[in-house]
Amino acid sequence: MVIAVDAAGGDYFPKNPVQGAIDAIGEKQDLTILLVGPEDLIKAELRNYSYDTERIQILHAPDVIGMDESPSTAVKNKRNSSIVLGLSAHKQQKCEAFVSAGNTGALLAASMFILGKLEGVQRPTIAATIPTIKGIRLLIDAGANLELKPETYRQFAQMGTIYSREIMGIKDPTVGLINVGEEPEKGTELLKEVFGILKGIPNFRGNIEGRDIFNATADIFLCDGLIGNILLKFGESIPSTLQMIIGKTMKEMNLDADTRDTVVNILHKSLHAFNYEHVGGIPFLGVDGISMVGHGGSTPAAVKNMILNASNCVEAGINKKIIASLKN
Amino acid sequence: MVIAVDAAGGDYFPKNPVQGAIDAIGEKQDLTILLVGPEDLIKAELRNYSYDTERIQILHAPDVIGMDESPSTAVKNKRNSSIVLGLSAHKQQKCEAFVSAGNTGALLAASMFILGKLEGVQRPTIAATIPTIKGIRLLIDAGANLELKPETYRQFAQMGTIYSREIMGIKDPTVGLINVGEEPEKGTELLKEVFGILKGIPNFRGNIEGRDIFNATADIFLCDGLIGNILLKFGESIPSTLQMIIGKTMKEMNLDADTRDTVVNILHKSLHAFNYEHVGGIPFLGVDGISMVGHGGSTPAAVKNMILNASNCVEAGINKKIIASLKN
Repeated sequence: MVIAVDAAGGDYFPKNPVQGAIDAIGEKQDLTILLVGPEDLIKAELRNYSYDTERIQILHAPDVIGMDESPSTAVKNKRNSSIVLGLSAHKQQKCEAFVSAGNTGALLAASMFILGKLEGVQRPTIAATIPTIKGIRLLIDAGANLELKPETYRQFAQMGTIYSREIMGIKDPTVGLINVGEEPEKGTELLKEVFGILKGIPNFRGNIEGRDIFNATADIFLCDGLIGNILLKFGESIPSTLQMIIGKTMKEMNLDADTRDTVVNILHKSLHAFNYEHVGGIPFLGVDGISMVGHGGSTPAAVKNMILNASNCVEAGINKKIIASLKN
Repeated sequence: MVIAVDAAGGDYFPKNPVQGAIDAIGEKQDLTILLVGPEDLIKAELRNYSYDTERIQILHAPDVIGMDESPSTAVKNKRNSSIVLGLSAHKQQKCEAFVSAGNTGALLAASMFILGKLEGVQRPTIAATIPTIKGIRLLIDAGANLELKPETYRQFAQMGTIYSREIMGIKDPTVGLINVGEEPEKGTELLKEVFGILKGIPNFRGNIEGRDIFNATADIFLCDGLIGNILLKFGESIPSTLQMIIGKTMKEMNLDADTRDTVVNILHKSLHAFNYEHVGGIPFLGVDGISMVGHGGSTPAAVKNMILNASNCVEAGINKKIIASLKN
């Protein structure tokens, strides 16, 4: 299997994508990586490693899309960027997936434009993983679609169900609609209508509230991209906030250095799952291909996880399963 | 000053409201409390305390509105409830404020019906306090109005500004509009329009993101009640989630009991500000009177804080200041 990796994406390229790629081929036997980006940068970085040279290939893409560039302009003007050339290679079946820690908006726009939508899909979506007391769960939509039509919620629920079951290994995933109360009559007129439509899917468990997310009373947390994006970024700020307030408390308590170190260690271990820079990515669901985006600050381990996750998506044939699911 | 206290509201009545009332008169000299609720229950509870009997009075209200009752039905059918009689006493100027840990929806509905709106106010709102690394800040709307018109955001920003400055003691409070990005062109069409309107108030600092809440890059976090309610309940679940995951980490690390106790103690102190059961309430802003609601699980200390906070609102004349502010 060939997976293309954006070697010019994220805050730490080419180092982290290249190191992640090399670590990935070390972990998975049948994997070949196509590093997409400026050839000279990639070659210089590769010199730091020893690896099976047949399993790391390069696709030269001189243009670099910045993390803050306007997605539509970037995709239109930078035809020789890693994102455009990598996705084009995927479209031409030169690779089975494309993964990137780069500009999310540009990657989504280019994925829609180059790969197109899966049969029957109204809107592709970005999902995100959320740590809960029961393990990692899925939030959908994470910011790709700020407003949704009622029927689109249903499709997102179905796509999220496939992903949770096939890739995240959750046996019978349930869908919860994020709302202000549990009763069907709660929320805006739109959410009431959505509730009525979601009743038609077998694994809908009803409305859930903000407090149900960390408690994972459902496995797929469904909301529009406005709410999803705000919640995610709020959640992302929890570890640094805690470190700050707990540090302040410890100072006030005049604790000795050993105790402080122990607490910091406990905190670090406990909050690991919240650290989005270590977590791999999730593919855009509903796109005709496997196009995956990770955190801009992705570590080499995160890039490696992204690559392995993309190969899992290919092997599970999630897109065929999504098409079949949407027909129900 | 007379403050009426709902002695039949919250999860722990009459105990917590009665104890909170007695603690409040111990802290503030010129305060008299009117306990509103079933007389026999209140009298039985009062027997547990010694206090200045002239400063604790009773207004008999036999009907009890349950925490989960439909607000509109409850207010219509239970004319002799503590909420209806307490707010009526306030309307008749028998007391300067009414505070309750009871059914929020019923209290809001009755406040609108009995007290009415302040001059110039489109919609009254519920604000909520949020702990941040800079101290307690204000989120508005916390769930009273799930959808807002653009001009209403502006009024909420103005009312929140008055409350933050006059009651929370924040010198030059700034307003941030919760959105998916900082740039003016981010978000839904509605949010773009709101951004344009908010530019007209001098203390608007622009769009903020989910991560800016705990970092308090603004002092007033502005959003519709749908987002506000979801965010608040998500935030409320942080302490118990952390206790659970940190407890699990400590178990895995096989720590001794002393270290575990120290960590639990540090955690407890650090998360105190997140414990909504200890925090007093905030008045509905935009109502013609001071009607304040607290958490259903309010402790006696929270009820006491609510009473003292209500007296601060009366003394600061916040409603006159809101009326003046809305004219700008």
